[in-house]
Amino acid sequence: MKKLMNSPKTLVADWLDGFSAAHAHIVALAPGRKFLRRAAPAQGKVALISGGGSGHEPLHAGFVGRGMLDAACPGPIFTAPTPDQIVEAANALAGDAGVLFIVKNYAGDRMNFEMAAEMVRCRHATLLVEDDVVDAETPRAIGRRGVAGTVIVEKMLGAAAEAGADLEACLALGEKVKGRTRSIGVALSYCTLPDGRPRYATLGPDEMEFGVGIHGEPGRRKAKLVSADAIAEELVSAILADLGDRRSEDALLLINGLGGTPLSELYVMYNSTRRSLERRGVRVVRSLVGNFVTSLDMVGCSVTVALLDAELTGLWDSPVHTAALRW
Amino acid sequence: MKKLMNSPKTLVADWLDGFSAAHAHIVALAPGRKFLRRAAPAQGKVALISGGGSGHEPLHAGFVGRGMLDAACPGPIFTAPTPDQIVEAANALAGDAGVLFIVKNYAGDRMNFEMAAEMVRCRHATLLVEDDVVDAETPRAIGRRGVAGTVIVEKMLGAAAEAGADLEACLALGEKVKGRTRSIGVALSYCTLPDGRPRYATLGPDEMEFGVGIHGEPGRRKAKLVSADAIAEELVSAILADLGDRRSEDALLLINGLGGTPLSELYVMYNSTRRSLERRGVRVVRSLVGNFVTSLDMVGCSVTVALLDAELTGLWDSPVHTAALRW
Repeated sequence: MKKLMNSPKTLVADWLDGFSAAHAHIVALAPGRKFLRRAAPAQGKVALISGGGSGHEPLHAGFVGRGMLDAACPGPIFTAPTPDQIVEAANALAGDAGVLFIVKNYAGDRMNFEMAAEMVRCRHATLLVEDDVVDAETPRAIGRRGVAGTVIVEKMLGAAAEAGADLEACLALGEKVKGRTRSIGVALSYCTLPDGRPRYATLGPDEMEFGVGIHGEPGRRKAKLVSADAIAEELVSAILADLGDRRSEDALLLINGLGGTPLSELYVMYNSTRRSLERRGVRVVRSLVGNFVTSLDMVGCSVTVALLDAELTGLWDSPVHTAALRW
Repeated sequence: MKKLMNSPKTLVADWLDGFSAAHAHIVALAPGRKFLRRAAPAQGKVALISGGGSGHEPLHAGFVGRGMLDAACPGPIFTAPTPDQIVEAANALAGDAGVLFIVKNYAGDRMNFEMAAEMVRCRHATLLVEDDVVDAETPRAIGRRGVAGTVIVEKMLGAAAEAGADLEACLALGEKVKGRTRSIGVALSYCTLPDGRPRYATLGPDEMEFGVGIHGEPGRRKAKLVSADAIAEELVSAILADLGDRRSEDALLLINGLGGTPLSELYVMYNSTRRSLERRGVRVVRSLVGNFVTSLDMVGCSVTVALLDAELTGLWDSPVHTAALRW
């Protein structure tokens, strides 16, 4: 285990300091590093606040800015932020329009955002992101995991909130996006925690894990590594089976790197996945390829498909100005 | 060795197909995949054409677009494009203003761009990029390598050409940027070629390589892995020693990931490097952090410092619309 860091204890603090210094015109770090907020706070709109464990960079910090989040609360590696952080962010940013908490569906995140929600003084609502198809087949009490579809939810809601949607409209839009967005990942190697502990099992020299989670959670099955085309075919099948019969629709295709995968391989996967979707009658009209919701140094990628209509396409195309997403 | 690909033979073709499909509004792939050009070709300006071996993605393909390159010629992995590719790109894109070839300083690239230059029918000139400080100490016949400073050269020249600079002015500006730009890299693990061959030696479980090249070339020395702060201190010392006494100047700091390094660690290195520079009186006024000039799946990063003045700051800030760089 080798990492570019000063120590496991300071990794999150050092990344936050570096990130906020590099993008000082976009984000500002609150005292005590409790949350990142926009450098130029927006007024008179629903405040969108997300957060979660660190180790998934650029999520969520990289999505704070005009047209997307108002603040992000970073926890320790793979550990939810404290209710205290979330309350401070909400109280600092909430206006009359209230706050929408965007929470990935993990036990720790849900619990701490729920505790915070009971403590905040402002109007608020919570949207759970749960786009991973895998837990739909192997259900646990907590349900589906929130993974790379989070980027799409945050982008769509960011555009709507910026355009003046109220809290109820944001919540309804969030449910609509969730209903049309599914993800599944594949890992060629698991991540290693900064203190050197590997996560869960290891993978053999020619093995991959279908349906891996963004903390290295086991997926559907381990299998022998096959070609990009064959991997894409299986991932697309899993997504379309879960979305139901939605052929002849337009889609946004996100190929998300898990942290240690070269960009060239992500575009190879994009190429295979796009062709697989189009053979099945799903037309890819918007695309995003890169590292957005990562798992430390995990090698692999996830595929997210979001079915679009005119409203969602317009929200996706709306200007965004964050460190990690900009157009 | 595990990669997301169909086969080592098709990796470059598949990445080019995926990349050009994902960014069809920005780039178009020429027949036979000989070069990538802008989807909306520019008229009446110096055409900037770069290229080189693949394996360094997003370089150069990701920098084709408004405000940066007009075309990029991709070779096989770590192998220069053929003169034929370069000639076709030049003849397709050159107008009366001529062509500037931007070439990283490697024997194969130099030779093939020189052969192409003898064959093209248009006005042309060539700028060699040679920003790596390492070969300055261990000279070979070929001189310094072109590494991540290439992004800065291409961005500055792209802005100037877009604003109407003629061929001579572009060449002079290129020399100016080169004189003020230095890079050095560090690897925690070497890259693996798509056919499974490792490059050069291997690194031990607590070892790093200072001054590594973007093809895994050996650098100044192997050493025991130390903290990000200590690594930054050594990289900054090497760069500032080579730039000469340039304190009290403004600088652009680029932390470039080599392909397999998580973004969080790149920002940790940014934080350490920025503080080291500022302790020495160099003020960081512009920043870029991410994977721009990679070496397949190599783990590590490079640091590039470019000293700015009002002209260069203005060129850096000019709008750019490419797949990999956009503002």
